[in-house]
Amino acid sequence: MNRPVLDDSVRLTDEGVLILDRRVFPARQEWVLARSAGEVAVAIREMVTQSSGPFYAGLAGLRLSARLHRGDGVETALKALVDDGELLTAARPTNNHVRDAVREVLAAVSLAAPDSAEELAEIVEAETGRLESAYRGGSAELGRLTAALIPDGARVMTHCWMDAYLIGVVQEAASAGRSYEWVVTETRPYLQGARLTAHTLAEMGQKLTLITDGTAAAAMSPQSTLGPIDALVTAADRVTMDGHVINKVGTLGHAIAASAFDIPFYALVLAPDRTAATASDVVIEERDGAEVLSTLGSRTASSLVERGYYPAFDVTPPRFVRRIVTDRGVFEPARVGEYHREIS
Amino acid sequence: MNRPVLDDSVRLTDEGVLILDRRVFPARQEWVLARSAGEVAVAIREMVTQSSGPFYAGLAGLRLSARLHRGDGVETALKALVDDGELLTAARPTNNHVRDAVREVLAAVSLAAPDSAEELAEIVEAETGRLESAYRGGSAELGRLTAALIPDGARVMTHCWMDAYLIGVVQEAASAGRSYEWVVTETRPYLQGARLTAHTLAEMGQKLTLITDGTAAAAMSPQSTLGPIDALVTAADRVTMDGHVINKVGTLGHAIAASAFDIPFYALVLAPDRTAATASDVVIEERDGAEVLSTLGSRTASSLVERGYYPAFDVTPPRFVRRIVTDRGVFEPARVGEYHREIS
Repeated sequence: MNRPVLDDSVRLTDEGVLILDRRVFPARQEWVLARSAGEVAVAIREMVTQSSGPFYAGLAGLRLSARLHRGDGVETALKALVDDGELLTAARPTNNHVRDAVREVLAAVSLAAPDSAEELAEIVEAETGRLESAYRGGSAELGRLTAALIPDGARVMTHCWMDAYLIGVVQEAASAGRSYEWVVTETRPYLQGARLTAHTLAEMGQKLTLITDGTAAAAMSPQSTLGPIDALVTAADRVTMDGHVINKVGTLGHAIAASAFDIPFYALVLAPDRTAATASDVVIEERDGAEVLSTLGSRTASSLVERGYYPAFDVTPPRFVRRIVTDRGVFEPARVGEYHREIS
Repeated sequence: MNRPVLDDSVRLTDEGVLILDRRVFPARQEWVLARSAGEVAVAIREMVTQSSGPFYAGLAGLRLSARLHRGDGVETALKALVDDGELLTAARPTNNHVRDAVREVLAAVSLAAPDSAEELAEIVEAETGRLESAYRGGSAELGRLTAALIPDGARVMTHCWMDAYLIGVVQEAASAGRSYEWVVTETRPYLQGARLTAHTLAEMGQKLTLITDGTAAAAMSPQSTLGPIDALVTAADRVTMDGHVINKVGTLGHAIAASAFDIPFYALVLAPDRTAATASDVVIEERDGAEVLSTLGSRTASSLVERGYYPAFDVTPPRFVRRIVTDRGVFEPARVGEYHREIS
């Protein structure tokens, strides 16, 4: 199976962090160069990369920060690392992977108490490498657990772009001798489904059908001529301790429709966020409403329209979620908090 | 209140039927000239006009047919009228307004038994004029009944383009001293919401916010920062005698979400279709799946995507519909069949 282009979309070079521009991929393969962690944060905020991308870019940004201060005193380098970590964490508020990665790197640095900036850079290098491996390994584990839930030959609907989790599902299903037919929602306004998910599934040799976001319920209904949908599978940007799933806007509507037609909705996340007891503890990012008025940079709404509304994420209550798949197993939403209790 | 451009989008001229091209409106105001009823049918099939448009165009096509055969024998003219009526009826299968209009015109011709093609043309002229007046009057009545259900100042979500019904709601609400704030779904793939609905509401001085189709459930959810949605209001292309609502794809998902959040869904139709007992009696038109791969003519999906799925309509079961508003009053979905029983 080919390695998808998007599986290797962040690269740390001598010039800085190269980030594949997902705003224009796959129509164009362009890379944005971020020469500092602050520039990485700007790229994340401006949607150069998203889904798993900010996690990879955040790790590279921390590594870059430590490298750039290798010639300074250790206190200067550490202060820069803390400041850069804050910039990266603040780039977007809803997904918690960057925040958690920054915390883990800083904790590793604290624990090691390096004597020089050179040593600090080595610790950051090792810890970010460990975190990326753990993320990729965790994604493969989510894929394995999800593939075990969905029989061979099933028709699976997915929304937006699950990134490493999707690649994990496809690869692990193949390892288990299973393959799926995919129904992909286009995911306006950025069209991550039509561009990133559809492209990657095609690169991996998967059979797929693209639908508009508004067609999801119809495709799940008894009137669909596409054939039955066996499961709705999405990533989650955040899962609260009481089982709310926060993910790309549109997930909520698809989940409610899946529930109405008794189709299981599986949400994938490495771990629920122990700092978020419930949905009100999560900031839902609102992006510029003007995004809704255009499509890939061209105005598509009437010129008389002045106002769009674009919450980037929505909140799916646990009653519409069949299972939450984590790297420590599959949970009923109401019991996902046990993820953390098991090891405490 | 200004008359919206789309309220006068079909004109019978000496050259033929001029139809405002809704595929490019409002970015461009272009008219397609149909020189025969057959060309009107092609224009309807190719989406030059939709919603109330095919009804107006169908009437104009019948009038044109009778005019073109004014110099022939009455039998030739009648046969042409019947054939043209079939072409117009067959242009698109799901909405029943053209079919019913053709039947009524032919019934009026039968009843009058004209002696000449000239006389036949006069009957068609009168009957089509009567039908258009009845349609516009009925739409105003739907508007009056709908405005009575929704309090002043409410925030109303609508999907796709309700055409005469929407204009009726806005005008009749204004007459009753009520005005609404509108939340408009963009309605991919043709973006009727972003183009036609949003433009017309703005022309009529209404406050509106545009959202993607995937944002509808989020906007209805308790997490929305847009403020509460008080009602979901759409047209129906067809309503079955047992209360199924067939309308633009996307309506089903919005209706299910509205039901989950206890927001009333009002579907507007002049009359349920007495020839359709239930959903399986209605042909759901499937249009070219390639429509999903592009936006207003430009490719937006990955070039690797080969297959889209685009059912133009979906079926909302009665359990997700609060009321059906008809020109004979407001019905619970389960009792909408009484529309016809009342006068039998």
